[in-house]
Amino acid sequence: MTSEETRIGRRGRGRAARVAARSAPEAEVDPCPPGQTGGSYRPLPDSDLKTICAEAFRVLEEIGMGEVPIIVRDKALGSGAQLNDAGRLCFPRPMVEDIIAGAAKRFVYHGRDPRHDFEIGGDKVYFGTGGAAVQTLDRQTGLYRPSTLADLYDFTRLIDTLANVSWFTRCCVATDIPDNFDLDVNTAYALLAGTTKPVGTSFTQPDYVAPVIEMFDMALGGAGRFRERPFCKAHISPVISPLRYGEDAVGVTLECIRLGVPINAIIAAMSGATAPATPAGFLVQSTAETLAALILVNLFAPGYPMIFSNWPLVIDLRTGAFCGGGGEISVMNAASGQIGRHLGLPCGVACSMSDAKAVDAQMGMEKALSALAAGLGGANMIYESAGMMASLLGASFEAFVADDEMLSHVHRTIRGIEVNAETLGFETIREAVAGEGHFLGAPQTMAAMQRDYFYPNLADRNEPQTWAEAGAHDLMTRARTRCDGILSSHYPAYIDPAADAAIRDRFNILLPRARMQPA
Amino acid sequence: MTSEETRIGRRGRGRAARVAARSAPEAEVDPCPPGQTGGSYRPLPDSDLKTICAEAFRVLEEIGMGEVPIIVRDKALGSGAQLNDAGRLCFPRPMVEDIIAGAAKRFVYHGRDPRHDFEIGGDKVYFGTGGAAVQTLDRQTGLYRPSTLADLYDFTRLIDTLANVSWFTRCCVATDIPDNFDLDVNTAYALLAGTTKPVGTSFTQPDYVAPVIEMFDMALGGAGRFRERPFCKAHISPVISPLRYGEDAVGVTLECIRLGVPINAIIAAMSGATAPATPAGFLVQSTAETLAALILVNLFAPGYPMIFSNWPLVIDLRTGAFCGGGGEISVMNAASGQIGRHLGLPCGVACSMSDAKAVDAQMGMEKALSALAAGLGGANMIYESAGMMASLLGASFEAFVADDEMLSHVHRTIRGIEVNAETLGFETIREAVAGEGHFLGAPQTMAAMQRDYFYPNLADRNEPQTWAEAGAHDLMTRARTRCDGILSSHYPAYIDPAADAAIRDRFNILLPRARMQPA
Repeated sequence: MTSEETRIGRRGRGRAARVAARSAPEAEVDPCPPGQTGGSYRPLPDSDLKTICAEAFRVLEEIGMGEVPIIVRDKALGSGAQLNDAGRLCFPRPMVEDIIAGAAKRFVYHGRDPRHDFEIGGDKVYFGTGGAAVQTLDRQTGLYRPSTLADLYDFTRLIDTLANVSWFTRCCVATDIPDNFDLDVNTAYALLAGTTKPVGTSFTQPDYVAPVIEMFDMALGGAGRFRERPFCKAHISPVISPLRYGEDAVGVTLECIRLGVPINAIIAAMSGATAPATPAGFLVQSTAETLAALILVNLFAPGYPMIFSNWPLVIDLRTGAFCGGGGEISVMNAASGQIGRHLGLPCGVACSMSDAKAVDAQMGMEKALSALAAGLGGANMIYESAGMMASLLGASFEAFVADDEMLSHVHRTIRGIEVNAETLGFETIREAVAGEGHFLGAPQTMAAMQRDYFYPNLADRNEPQTWAEAGAHDLMTRARTRCDGILSSHYPAYIDPAADAAIRDRFNILLPRARMQPA
Repeated sequence: MTSEETRIGRRGRGRAARVAARSAPEAEVDPCPPGQTGGSYRPLPDSDLKTICAEAFRVLEEIGMGEVPIIVRDKALGSGAQLNDAGRLCFPRPMVEDIIAGAAKRFVYHGRDPRHDFEIGGDKVYFGTGGAAVQTLDRQTGLYRPSTLADLYDFTRLIDTLANVSWFTRCCVATDIPDNFDLDVNTAYALLAGTTKPVGTSFTQPDYVAPVIEMFDMALGGAGRFRERPFCKAHISPVISPLRYGEDAVGVTLECIRLGVPINAIIAAMSGATAPATPAGFLVQSTAETLAALILVNLFAPGYPMIFSNWPLVIDLRTGAFCGGGGEISVMNAASGQIGRHLGLPCGVACSMSDAKAVDAQMGMEKALSALAAGLGGANMIYESAGMMASLLGASFEAFVADDEMLSHVHRTIRGIEVNAETLGFETIREAVAGEGHFLGAPQTMAAMQRDYFYPNLADRNEPQTWAEAGAHDLMTRARTRCDGILSSHYPAYIDPAADAAIRDRFNILLPRARMQPA
């Protein structure tokens, strides 16, 4: 045969391949850890990028914000803002530019364990979770049911083992806790119990923040300790689209500032409903709104750690329902990250979401598309990037495991191609041609196979016959087995027993101690 | 609640959403057809891009090509090439640059039906098939078995209905045909019978080309007709890595040139085996090799239609087996497309491959990653992009249907974001804020929902409850149903009965007429 099947169809299963197999060591170094440098994908050409930002400034200057809490209005009017004829609070462009200039550009997101610390900002890309699913994909039934506190605890200790989940914002709501205060406290407790990675949560109302921080201080060993190592950020949406402040969320924002809780300020407008349906118009409005959140925070605390989370969300206009997968949401979130980086701000987007209910080809496809788009685009913090299903209504253990491996491929792609004298390898080529006619066993090959290639351990790379003999499993089945193994064994002891006793004495902790150890 | 779940978790299911649902028309225009403009992703910075190209020129100039057929050597030596001390044929950079300058930059890839014609080259991105799977994923058993001529016919009429498969290179080998001549003839016949899109095939040996073109002429209505509308290109690998010509494939190349068959010249080197393991070194060698194929073609036929198919392939160095999924192959193929476009040549890569055997989350993830990377990177022709499984060893009907929809999302992402006065929509924002506080029903919204959004019809966007009540199907199941529907009804009559009779009289056609109509 003269065509390509000679080269591919028969594959390299000859002598040379066997040599490779014998000589290939197991990779010991992660070739693609979190924190790769993004930005090689620029969905918006420079001129369009500048136009959208200029229009966003114009929206703030001419249309401005409605429903402004008095405390914000007074502070803003004293700092250069103006009320327009409609009584809306408008921010002149120079004022906004001053706010941006004084805003935090980079800050460390702490884990309780310092080895999980990482810096947010610049061109670095990290993936983590967000969301607030109200249902869990049950591992026994394969169907969805209301999510519980025990689920949240299990999700937390699961992600504790997943390298690419760089932080964990509680992925589901404990719907078995009717009281909102107990919900916020127990959500925070589950995060404490299951991981020492950076975490995130939300607060139902302003006066719930202080007690949760008190609990964090107790876990850390004393009053004031959280402020020294603020390992939990608050997810807050202080702006309601289109272009209004939300009074309760503003209150939570100010309380978080008072207590030293870093802020993830999320604008989650919906295309065609609460924001324009045109992607360009959407980005204009949502950028203006995220800037309005930045102004809020920086008016009260210049330079305060805040993530500029401009999350374009799409609805399927056939049904009016939010949908997390597709090309539109991929390109719009990638563009959002580009805008945030253009403004020099630590930016967050929401990607790697899916409308799939099953851990299936739809899920894999939808998540990979938007995760790669946002990652190559250089968004610093990619939320909702693991475990989320069903248009953010559900969370899945199996999906977490599958997504974690997917994110290694994404990080590998973002990492790109290093070009230097050694990697170009002119002499290696010359020697292979003059010598044995292949590259197997060459020193350059040995070095590169460990440094440059990611070897999946969940995905199946076997030949069909081998796969069939092993049971013809799909990824869902393999992921479930992996989950079962982790969840039956990984019960970390991240809360000091004395502190735990004190916390349980002070708060209504609903997760039984017996649930926090092997059955 | 003050946090993001207010906005996402509860979703837009209120009055506004119902208004949207009522008012949303079914999209009638494809918002993201094939042929989008790529290039917004640049995996190689300009300086690295130039360095790799310069090194490739240096490889051709200093290391050169081995095992050169005499006819090629003589022609090349008469055109500026030189033999080096090792007796290898070397091409000075000015000679190569002259060849590139005179090479075909754009050409039309014809379908038998002119509405399937498209132009290859520039920044336009199309997806189609390649490969030569030897196994088919059986729709009844869910396991792989040897692929047959009937499979190939079925795959062909299936893709005839799939909008994003812009051309069809026979995706599988009819392993039930022992004779190589019969194989080539019957492969070509199946392509004729199943589609009028542009097609592609390969030829086992040079003297098989003429009879196949004769059959094409018969189907088109007479001698010479194929040359007027060459709807089938030949996949040829005239270079064997590293840096040798392959005599048989060179023979096929020259015969194709003689008979007017456009050429897809594929270099399919394997990382760490037949090419360097370092991605940069790989691209240096494979670019040099693809240029060697370009030189071959253009020495004999300056400006002849040829696709510069520099396909980086990766092996898993743990086993020595080719693997089609992962970050490395994604970024390397995207970079290959960037190199091809930098050289100004119509370029092809191989992406959207998968190592998965099942139509599962692994498949969805692996295909989406590399398809998006290569598409955003701007490769003109993305081969292997639908239906291929098991590291190109297998093909799947269900995967074809799933991949076709995935490619719509990819095209939508590539399309990007149009920025102009209308799409920026400053006045639309002002009116929404001053008026009803939402964008539902606005003229801009109605226009955008048809023009800017792709609505999938295979993916499931229902809520979990609705999904469960419908049977909790995964995408594989839905794709199978879709396949069964198409294959039980779509029996196109693309060969004139008289021509068919003549073809069957002249050639040993093994696909029974009875198989070409509903059972």
